[in-house]
Amino acid sequence: VISGEWSRGLFVIKPEDEDIHTANERRLKELIGAPAGKLHTGRSRNDQVVTDMRLWLRDAISTLTDNALQLMSTMVERAAAEIDVLFPGYTHMQRAQPIRWSHWILSHAVALSRDVDRLLEIKKRVNVLPLGRYALEFDSISLNSMDATGQRDFVAEFLFWASLCLTHLSKMAEDLMLYSTKEFSFISLSDCAGFMMTLKGLPSSYNKDLQEDKEAMFDCYDTVHAVLQVTTGVMSTLKINQSVMEAALSSDMLATDLAYYLVRKGVPFREAHGISGKAVFAAESKNIALNQLTIFSIYPLFLHFSPLFGSDVSSVWDYRSSVEQYSAPGGTAKCSVAAQVEHLRNWLQKRTQ
Amino acid sequence: VISGEWSRGLFVIKPEDEDIHTANERRLKELIGAPAGKLHTGRSRNDQVVTDMRLWLRDAISTLTDNALQLMSTMVERAAAEIDVLFPGYTHMQRAQPIRWSHWILSHAVALSRDVDRLLEIKKRVNVLPLGRYALEFDSISLNSMDATGQRDFVAEFLFWASLCLTHLSKMAEDLMLYSTKEFSFISLSDCAGFMMTLKGLPSSYNKDLQEDKEAMFDCYDTVHAVLQVTTGVMSTLKINQSVMEAALSSDMLATDLAYYLVRKGVPFREAHGISGKAVFAAESKNIALNQLTIFSIYPLFLHFSPLFGSDVSSVWDYRSSVEQYSAPGGTAKCSVAAQVEHLRNWLQKRTQ
Amino acid sequence: VISGEWSRGLFVIKPEDEDIHTANERRLKELIGAPAGKLHTGRSRNDQVVTDMRLWLRDAISTLTDNALQLMSTMVERAAAEIDVLFPGYTHMQRAQPIRWSHWILSHAVALSRDVDRLLEIKKRVNVLPLGRYALEFDSISLNSMDATGQRDFVAEFLFWASLCLTHLSKMAEDLMLYSTKEFSFISLSDCAGFMMTLKGLPSSYNKDLQEDKEAMFDCYDTVHAVLQVTTGVMSTLKINQSVMEAALSSDMLATDLAYYLVRKGVPFREAHGISGKAVFAAESKNIALNQLTIFSIYPLFLHFSPLFGSDVSSVWDYRSSVEQYSAPGGTAKCSVAAQVEHLRNWLQKRTQ
Amino acid sequence: VISGEWSRGLFVIKPEDEDIHTANERRLKELIGAPAGKLHTGRSRNDQVVTDMRLWLRDAISTLTDNALQLMSTMVERAAAEIDVLFPGYTHMQRAQPIRWSHWILSHAVALSRDVDRLLEIKKRVNVLPLGRYALEFDSISLNSMDATGQRDFVAEFLFWASLCLTHLSKMAEDLMLYSTKEFSFISLSDCAGFMMTLKGLPSSYNKDLQEDKEAMFDCYDTVHAVLQVTTGVMSTLKINQSVMEAALSSDMLATDLAYYLVRKGVPFREAHGISGKAVFAAESKNIALNQLTIFSIYPLFLHFSPLFGSDVSSVWDYRSSVEQYSAPGGTAKCSVAAQVEHLRNWLQKRTQ
Repeated sequence: VISGEWSRGLFVIKPEDEDIHTANERRLKELIGAPAGKLHTGRSRNDQVVTDMRLWLRDAISTLTDNALQLMSTMVERAAAEIDVLFPGYTHMQRAQPIRWSHWILSHAVALSRDVDRLLEIKKRVNVLPLGRYALEFDSISLNSMDATGQRDFVAEFLFWASLCLTHLSKMAEDLMLYSTKEFSFISLSDCAGFMMTLKGLPSSYNKDLQEDKEAMFDCYDTVHAVLQVTTGVMSTLKINQSVMEAALSSDMLATDLAYYLVRKGVPFREAHGISGKAVFAAESKNIALNQLTIFSIYPLFLHFSPLFGSDVSSVWDYRSSVEQYSAPGGTAKCSVAAQVEHLRNWLQKRTQ
Repeated sequence: VISGEWSRGLFVIKPEDEDIHTANERRLKELIGAPAGKLHTGRSRNDQVVTDMRLWLRDAISTLTDNALQLMSTMVERAAAEIDVLFPGYTHMQRAQPIRWSHWILSHAVALSRDVDRLLEIKKRVNVLPLGRYALEFDSISLNSMDATGQRDFVAEFLFWASLCLTHLSKMAEDLMLYSTKEFSFISLSDCAGFMMTLKGLPSSYNKDLQEDKEAMFDCYDTVHAVLQVTTGVMSTLKINQSVMEAALSSDMLATDLAYYLVRKGVPFREAHGISGKAVFAAESKNIALNQLTIFSIYPLFLHFSPLFGSDVSSVWDYRSSVEQYSAPGGTAKCSVAAQVEHLRNWLQKRTQ
Repeated sequence: VISGEWSRGLFVIKPEDEDIHTANERRLKELIGAPAGKLHTGRSRNDQVVTDMRLWLRDAISTLTDNALQLMSTMVERAAAEIDVLFPGYTHMQRAQPIRWSHWILSHAVALSRDVDRLLEIKKRVNVLPLGRYALEFDSISLNSMDATGQRDFVAEFLFWASLCLTHLSKMAEDLMLYSTKEFSFISLSDCAGFMMTLKGLPSSYNKDLQEDKEAMFDCYDTVHAVLQVTTGVMSTLKINQSVMEAALSSDMLATDLAYYLVRKGVPFREAHGISGKAVFAAESKNIALNQLTIFSIYPLFLHFSPLFGSDVSSVWDYRSSVEQYSAPGGTAKCSVAAQVEHLRNWLQKRTQ
Repeated sequence: VISGEWSRGLFVIKPEDEDIHTANERRLKELIGAPAGKLHTGRSRNDQVVTDMRLWLRDAISTLTDNALQLMSTMVERAAAEIDVLFPGYTHMQRAQPIRWSHWILSHAVALSRDVDRLLEIKKRVNVLPLGRYALEFDSISLNSMDATGQRDFVAEFLFWASLCLTHLSKMAEDLMLYSTKEFSFISLSDCAGFMMTLKGLPSSYNKDLQEDKEAMFDCYDTVHAVLQVTTGVMSTLKINQSVMEAALSSDMLATDLAYYLVRKGVPFREAHGISGKAVFAAESKNIALNQLTIFSIYPLFLHFSPLFGSDVSSVWDYRSSVEQYSAPGGTAKCSVAAQVEHLRNWLQKRTQ
């Protein structure tokens, strides 16, 4: 059994190690082209390999930054266009509060913006010349030659970055899968759907044992590069089913709003929540929706919970008003979401110029 | 930058997933040959892949078992031949007690014997037919079809096994490297030495994210297969420098023996250790060897530590007597080490028939 | 349940290391009681610690085996009682083929049965006396004293076991969460539901760096011990909504059955699947269910796909017949599922005696 | 130092989860004191926990930054004081080229300087208010409320940081252990030596499964906090044995210098290395030191290797000249090492003001 394609021969611990390193270098030179040629100045092999890795990773980071910015741009514009669509927020698959669909999109876009920030920080540390003499187009020069040739922190940092970024994309994919099940039917995915499925189980942990592994670096790049592009495809082509999304909202998601109604009337916070909880329980016992409770039995029953309930309690049952309450920065109100869109558009513009 | 050789295209999450699976299957068939052909009976793709993986891994396990047994056999015979060589046992690189060189070898052989036992247990669980209908040459049939096609426990088990086995080989390599430094000069390594160096940093942690990764399974096999063979080469060709090894023994390693001398004279264990510790400290303060203390100043000084010290204390300073004290099963006495050799020879014979 | 709280303050690398080891030993003695006392025979501290760890883990494994058997028993009896309930099988959250609810339960029970088998194998290797002299109630004696005190393979094995077992429980929890969403409404979870949520993100990877960590061993035990018991609670109290489960079945899940219908009439396998695929596409285009296609337009349209379609094609649309087709061992037919139940009942009886 | 002892009982997945969260909050409030009190403004529990974690981690990062700067300062001043001491550089425990002892120290100090840079980058992202309303003393406000309460990237980043920093400290500890063995005897460690031993096997891999684990965050902090302080102790108290270190230098480490001698005389690089290699081999065959070859047989033998060898070849055998050759930035020449010291002093001053 002659195990392994040629590429697996690159695996570090083969007996024919010597030849393999040579092959490895050749491949690195193929990947980074001309610049590698310029570096042949009698330096030791290890110096060369580290320099080549840094040159390669610097380019890889540029490409991934572009990929991530493109995905973010797609998401931000989609969020801008569909800002009026409401649907249930979920926690551990259980319905929580009504939110804007755009708010969900932007929560993932914001995570990606941190990924881009981190990537640019790593780039600074990758862009350091380990050879000690010729500056080429590097930003700075290594401070200590032993550290320069021996350390692979920049690879470890990149692998961790990839792991964290894939975790973010994987969470987003998991939500999209759930929303696209026949049972949810919130969205329809394009043909990339099958691909999204596999995202859920992405290898996403960083492993220090691999930190010096060139192959791990190449693999990670390939993976993130592909995943960012496919996700851009998915996010730009999916179709939302607005009516289904909004029909999924139910008044029990507004229990907190009911409590706030009482808080506004002077009831202490904890007491208000207690009353709201009792109302939810009563509705469940009667097997009716929470808001039906207020329609059918507002006077006798609701006053039973609290004499402060007035006929204006009906205003609580408006999902749109509910999301509009959170108008602070980062909130679900239209103005807040629009501000997030605007902030991210500016953020993107600065980084794509 | 068109990253990646063809083989990296096998990576699970590529957009062209469908083609890749097909390619993957083809490769599996190439690897396992004819048996795969027989299986084409209209079963689903996933069934086929799992069956092929099980067939491949079953063969891989047989090969690795043979490799491990050969390495153990080399080690056991070396231990038998060099049973009379003493050298310092080390804990965290610091000299501890005198031991037999064979005792060190066998400590690693015993670890490998557990690895072989584990591998045979895993083989039982690999050798289960997931297809549910045709028994071929499998040991048993899967109990539940969903579990059969969905689970990859056997891959996870194999990856963990490889990780643990590599940890053992890596520890042994680390010791050999230390013993072969110019400063230690206990052994001279053959040309495989350079290779041994790389063993120290072997990827050795198991990662659940990889548990369904066929590539991880292939890579692990390649690595362990190569490492077991190289280690066999190293262990059968290294040369020991017996005089250097024995010259490295020093009387301060016998502080415990000195305490036991007192224990045999009726001093309670803790007190005996306290006295021995004082003697070591006194020798260090005077910058002489511990045994010189007993030669030069036996009556005035040693009696100062304890009146129970007699002239027979000189018998303590015999390294060979020291290792002979541990004659219980698993001990360092010649008879105990010989018994280990005999036990492992029998163990090996049972498994290689 | 309270094992290990205090001790968690004992993280190995504290500066006050010395005191901590002492404290650790004391705690181990508290946990295992009298037997530890008997062991004080002048052995080194490390010997003692390893022996104590082995004694502790041996008991822990017994408890976990009991926990796992109880969970399995609960699952098997539930599967026996609800063998007639059908519902959709899911792959990556997308509906696949109709299966029995019991088939789903048993797929997880079978995974647990492997976990128990593995645990018993590990127990053999835990139950080895490292001290070399007094046999106590251990199964066997360590072969080599260096290996005996230096190796922590048994801890690594246990941690990996826990990781794999938690992966199984986590997969089951993830499915249960999905089935209990308002959108699915297949099951209603008891008050343990909130707890189940947290299971999804359980720490489940094994880490070689931790392999010598007593704390990791205690933590793992606490976790698995708690999770097995809570899952037993969930599985014995959840309520299924049979009508919702069966209403979720739809004829497009039977595309494979339609193909088999043609195969039985002599159409080659691949061609049959092609025809079935076209019919599914036609139904989707017309926005009707696949089976409605055969009701409304059997002669003109279906004959258009294949002249072999007869009026008996209506028999394909019976979900119960569909699951009955898979009557091989491990299949979804009632007799196959009943055989699984019987097999597991016997398996459990052997291990609980 | 006592942070987190009690809390370690709080492992996330206990059945009594609810109480534990409550307890956790209380403890966090105890740790951060007054600021936590100000935050009670009717926000949800999860918001509070995240805010408290951010406040706690912000302080923890400040402390660790101080610890790391103090260690670096100790190392830099030691490097300045002992700049004239030479000793062998080692690669995988095998002697490589002569270097300055200070060069070795600074290679580790430079790695720590990157750790500090990374920590300050993380601090920026930790110092973000998730509550969305009250700015307190935070640097900025979360952009999206879902992201703010759901993400624990800052914990993952911190854990990865700790893993990388511990890897650096562990490598340094491993070298120090080797240098302090009786066989090497380059340095004598103070009483902290025993502790250093344990550093070698420090848990140092980051695990995504733990990324949301408050306990992991507390543990990591405790570990790094202790290790940085102990290492400062070790580095400020160890004694070097300059004569032993310099006696360990041998002329075979100068094979590269011999090649460069020829390069300076016009021999092409590869050819020069070939000739040097032959000389090394000849010396080994004759069992004499490489430089003895030039003393005893300079004309007949060395000219045999190359006619370009003159009597000035003896200048090659000066270890001090050898290290002086590397006068580029980051090199081993006294001026280069002094420049590293100066650079790091300035770097430290900027960060400690």
